[in-house]
Amino acid sequence: MKKADVVVIGGSAAGLVAGISCHRRYPEKHVLLIRKEEQVLVPCGIPYIFGTLGSPEKDLIPDALLSNNGIELVKDEVVDVDRAKKTVAVKGGQEVAYDKLILATGSSPIRLPIAGSDKRNVFVVSKEVAYLNDMLAAVNEAKDIVIIGGGFIGVEFADECKKGRDANVSIIEALPHCLQLALDTEFCVEAESILTERGVRLFTERRVEAILGDDQVSGVRLSSGEEIKADVVIMGVGAVPNVALANTIGLQTGTSRAVEVDNYMRTLSDPNIFACGDVAEKRSFFTGRCSAIMLASVATAEARIAGANAFRTCCRNLGEIGVWSTIVGERAFACA
Amino acid sequence: MKKADVVVIGGSAAGLVAGISCHRRYPEKHVLLIRKEEQVLVPCGIPYIFGTLGSPEKDLIPDALLSNNGIELVKDEVVDVDRAKKTVAVKGGQEVAYDKLILATGSSPIRLPIAGSDKRNVFVVSKEVAYLNDMLAAVNEAKDIVIIGGGFIGVEFADECKKGRDANVSIIEALPHCLQLALDTEFCVEAESILTERGVRLFTERRVEAILGDDQVSGVRLSSGEEIKADVVIMGVGAVPNVALANTIGLQTGTSRAVEVDNYMRTLSDPNIFACGDVAEKRSFFTGRCSAIMLASVATAEARIAGANAFRTCCRNLGEIGVWSTIVGERAFACA
Repeated sequence: MKKADVVVIGGSAAGLVAGISCHRRYPEKHVLLIRKEEQVLVPCGIPYIFGTLGSPEKDLIPDALLSNNGIELVKDEVVDVDRAKKTVAVKGGQEVAYDKLILATGSSPIRLPIAGSDKRNVFVVSKEVAYLNDMLAAVNEAKDIVIIGGGFIGVEFADECKKGRDANVSIIEALPHCLQLALDTEFCVEAESILTERGVRLFTERRVEAILGDDQVSGVRLSSGEEIKADVVIMGVGAVPNVALANTIGLQTGTSRAVEVDNYMRTLSDPNIFACGDVAEKRSFFTGRCSAIMLASVATAEARIAGANAFRTCCRNLGEIGVWSTIVGERAFACA
Repeated sequence: MKKADVVVIGGSAAGLVAGISCHRRYPEKHVLLIRKEEQVLVPCGIPYIFGTLGSPEKDLIPDALLSNNGIELVKDEVVDVDRAKKTVAVKGGQEVAYDKLILATGSSPIRLPIAGSDKRNVFVVSKEVAYLNDMLAAVNEAKDIVIIGGGFIGVEFADECKKGRDANVSIIEALPHCLQLALDTEFCVEAESILTERGVRLFTERRVEAILGDDQVSGVRLSSGEEIKADVVIMGVGAVPNVALANTIGLQTGTSRAVEVDNYMRTLSDPNIFACGDVAEKRSFFTGRCSAIMLASVATAEARIAGANAFRTCCRNLGEIGVWSTIVGERAFACA
């Protein structure tokens, strides 16, 4: 049986940084990272694939980052963990014994349960290269692009989709303003006016009630009764933690349905299993309350703590501070 | 060998409340509490023994609180814990097996290393009944009482020592005002003027450099050069966590030298051992930083969490908020 001191499950931001952090703290330990993706992306770069970068290949995290840090990479999917025997089973049939396990299985984008949301060319903001290539091809051919959700992902997508294209781009946002969960109204208004100047149409205080078309999307109908043409619909409305494996192996989850961890990023159920990133439950630094914000900055901060604490509890998570920045047109917006 | 599901070490506020909390959550579990004291006191009531209450006997916590909650009480001193075998050894020689252990060994008052601090009638604010009876007898005979430390314990002692006595009572405080670590200056000044009206002499911005006398204390010399007569000196300058046992059995301690716990009150070193109260390291709710404040309110809040989490992690410690109140003369002062 294959054996590693530390097995990291998941190869996106959290898994990668947890592995590197663990290797740097404990250079004598063998760290093995298992991820199901052939290639992984810089998550914050995904909207830019559709404009500034031009392709998923320009947004890749090179696997050399792992090998340069002495981390062994296995590309396979973990299907089970035997917590008593301390082994991980992968789809290929192999087993890997571990001493410490770091769960970093990330999150999946939400596909809203709107009538017609299963039609062709209705996309979510996936992190998969093949999916993003299909999505990019569809966006490149689209005349009318509708983005559901005016949060920072939706706004970035809208801004990027306008670059080098003469497609009609619309944002549908349920709140009175785009970016309203993150910014004060005066800054939302400023971002909106830049979007409008760049030709993005904004439909705020409206929801999408149905996605229209036959096999393929042809438009959306809003709660206001308006209908908007669409060749492509992009849902940018958040993500949910990937807890299927955690549930299978009996790790306790919390109010946000993510894996509950203590302030050392140890799961509550098993002192040898840590969790970090989007799969781990978060708490606000300010209120101590459960927080569902998913940011790579938070995920990597947690990953550094999880990796460092693997064999000796030394770093403490004081809670999440949502710090982020984005660019709309030529104007940067940031918030802490 | 005696066997309990939960062994609580320590019978003051934290141990008592941890035991009760645990019993209420898990009524089917056998909770056994070991404390070395024959009797225990309401800690917040100790200064009032010297005036309002009149004797330590008026400040006792009845053992019936334990028996009424189905908790077995053993009066003995724990000298060792075998974490591998999960047994506790007491001075009497007996061993007790446990499934979960809650450490609530509290704190001990600081005796400042001032020349002469070992003289007779130099007291610290102990929680022991016999000691407090000796102290009360000395206070009752004293003409001149000097209190070192103008924090809330020192101020309460000064105010109580004036009740029904015509002794001279002086407070020596190193800071510009009494109560300054807790209150804004305007409230400190108000408390000081009440103390002064009641005949307490205040020596602020001065330290005690030496405790004078032969075998027994006769006075103190201040950093200003002043000498003050004293038959009794009371040091109310804080406490240090009782970590001797924790150190013996290898539990990790933190920057405040208390036992480090996660936000579920589990010690970092052993998932079956919890710590709460003055022996456990605290963090500020507001800053997340280490905090050394020792209050029964905080200790019992932690104890409720520790007891509740013994068999199923369900309650989380969000950090310490120092809330307290006191009375000086007829005026109440409170702070949160």
